[in-house]
Amino acid sequence: MLCNHTIHKHHHHFGWDNAIDPILTVTPGETVEIETIDASAGQVGPDTTLEEFLARDASRVNPVTGPIYIEGAEPGDAVAVTFKDFQPSGWGWTANIPGFGLLADQFTEPALHIWKYDARTLAPALFGASAAVPLRPFCGTVGLAPAAPGVHSVIPPSRVGGNLDIRDNAVGTTLYLPVEVAGGLLSLGDTHAAQGDGEVCGTAIESPMVVAVEIGLIKQARLAFPRFETNGLVSRHLDEAGYRATTGVGPDLMQAARDAVSGMIDWLCASTNMAAVDAYMLCSVCADLRISEIVDAPNWTVSLYFPKMVLR
Amino acid sequence: MLCNHTIHKHHHHFGWDNAIDPILTVTPGETVEIETIDASAGQVGPDTTLEEFLARDASRVNPVTGPIYIEGAEPGDAVAVTFKDFQPSGWGWTANIPGFGLLADQFTEPALHIWKYDARTLAPALFGASAAVPLRPFCGTVGLAPAAPGVHSVIPPSRVGGNLDIRDNAVGTTLYLPVEVAGGLLSLGDTHAAQGDGEVCGTAIESPMVVAVEIGLIKQARLAFPRFETNGLVSRHLDEAGYRATTGVGPDLMQAARDAVSGMIDWLCASTNMAAVDAYMLCSVCADLRISEIVDAPNWTVSLYFPKMVLR
Repeated sequence: MLCNHTIHKHHHHFGWDNAIDPILTVTPGETVEIETIDASAGQVGPDTTLEEFLARDASRVNPVTGPIYIEGAEPGDAVAVTFKDFQPSGWGWTANIPGFGLLADQFTEPALHIWKYDARTLAPALFGASAAVPLRPFCGTVGLAPAAPGVHSVIPPSRVGGNLDIRDNAVGTTLYLPVEVAGGLLSLGDTHAAQGDGEVCGTAIESPMVVAVEIGLIKQARLAFPRFETNGLVSRHLDEAGYRATTGVGPDLMQAARDAVSGMIDWLCASTNMAAVDAYMLCSVCADLRISEIVDAPNWTVSLYFPKMVLR
Repeated sequence: MLCNHTIHKHHHHFGWDNAIDPILTVTPGETVEIETIDASAGQVGPDTTLEEFLARDASRVNPVTGPIYIEGAEPGDAVAVTFKDFQPSGWGWTANIPGFGLLADQFTEPALHIWKYDARTLAPALFGASAAVPLRPFCGTVGLAPAAPGVHSVIPPSRVGGNLDIRDNAVGTTLYLPVEVAGGLLSLGDTHAAQGDGEVCGTAIESPMVVAVEIGLIKQARLAFPRFETNGLVSRHLDEAGYRATTGVGPDLMQAARDAVSGMIDWLCASTNMAAVDAYMLCSVCADLRISEIVDAPNWTVSLYFPKMVLR
């Protein structure tokens, strides 16, 4: 897509810090084409082996391209980021990284899956013989600089956005981020070819892309947290054959989510010849964690919805 | 629908208790037509006023019709309940009940909305001048008797099911419940004409219905928690115009869910002339709580998706 500006991937940084100099200033309404690198900062490629993956520098994680200074943005305003276009790379990776992920206590061995997909058609990407995952590219990490000084890790999201991993920050969505510093200082990266709600194993289909966004500004929006608006459907690429769903029921939402994911791994392993860690990674890229009820005290219901069309 | 058996609504009970005598014994594969009463046990009707609602006996809450003894069901098995048909009543109620609901601390005053809808067409039900809610009848409460003796409240769900409030326990879905006592002892009720994931204000469109189910048995399923399988789509009645979504970001899923719901109430009130409590009740019947990410420690993202087609 033809944009007002282009930023290349060497303009990336590894932490949120409002002292990082902007590499571009935009006027609200302008569009920017942004080249991203993947969450491994380019250390994983389409031919990387598990051994090579384990030898990577894990401190170089989740870089974002930017920051962009938005003219007129002041604390209390909201920056509106509309995702206009994604140019996917055609490959991606999903890993189980020991110590990271919802079931890190159960999955202690590393695993890596490299995906190849058709960047033009975005046809479902094969996962061994048992599954094919519909793709819907989006930005895992998009955020502004926080007011608090110093370098802040890119791993946790915050009220100014960041690693939100909202699977619907895809084409047509507008994300509204609360501004805490002059100019907002927008950066983004961590593009994913697909992810389920929850990103349960800790990684999605991590895939470098070029992202085109339109950047708007809403004065005095006074948002407490990020909001977004989708222009269209969010599940139609997944729902045609219905879902399998597992639940966790109990007084702790986190444990209920863990129980729901464990239940789905059991179900997938019992009905396919998939290894448990593969089922876990597959849930991460296509299954959705929903809070079915959060009011019937003292027990809540969390459900994991796995789209049946994924299984072959 | 023509079923093998019929149970009328006077056969209801108010707690889970494996000592309650079954009112029917079925062979796996049989169908049962079950008349339910609403969560107020018939104390609310299509013309009830808020004053009358407040005068109800609140101890008579969430009755279920049953129990049904399933021949051959033993601990370790799963009872499979397939929802075949709902005959809705054409009316329902949604209330904010002080002390109950996700934002009970913020919404301390009682409120009641009575819905009228076309039971034949199930056309979206009007909510004042600002909204119309697509309907999809389902069973809020469906469960088996627990092994633990005595009477257990029907409010919290448990691993044998109960008040799961899973909005997809609708036509075409099969719910699998772990059996803890001989015969399983299935009861159901708490039918809803519509509800969002979360049921955030604590009530849905509470609406008495006749439910037809097929009851199956899976020997030695050994489920830890309930599971279900949908035969079709779960969001197509809602998603055509896309969504507004608000988020909560932080280290506690419960607080993040509360922040997401508060954000949506603010957004709805700012863009319509709806009262806050009405926006809260509207979210309860049509907006979905999703866990966008649960791995980017220490902060999780919870999002509330409000379907834009609901707003007029």
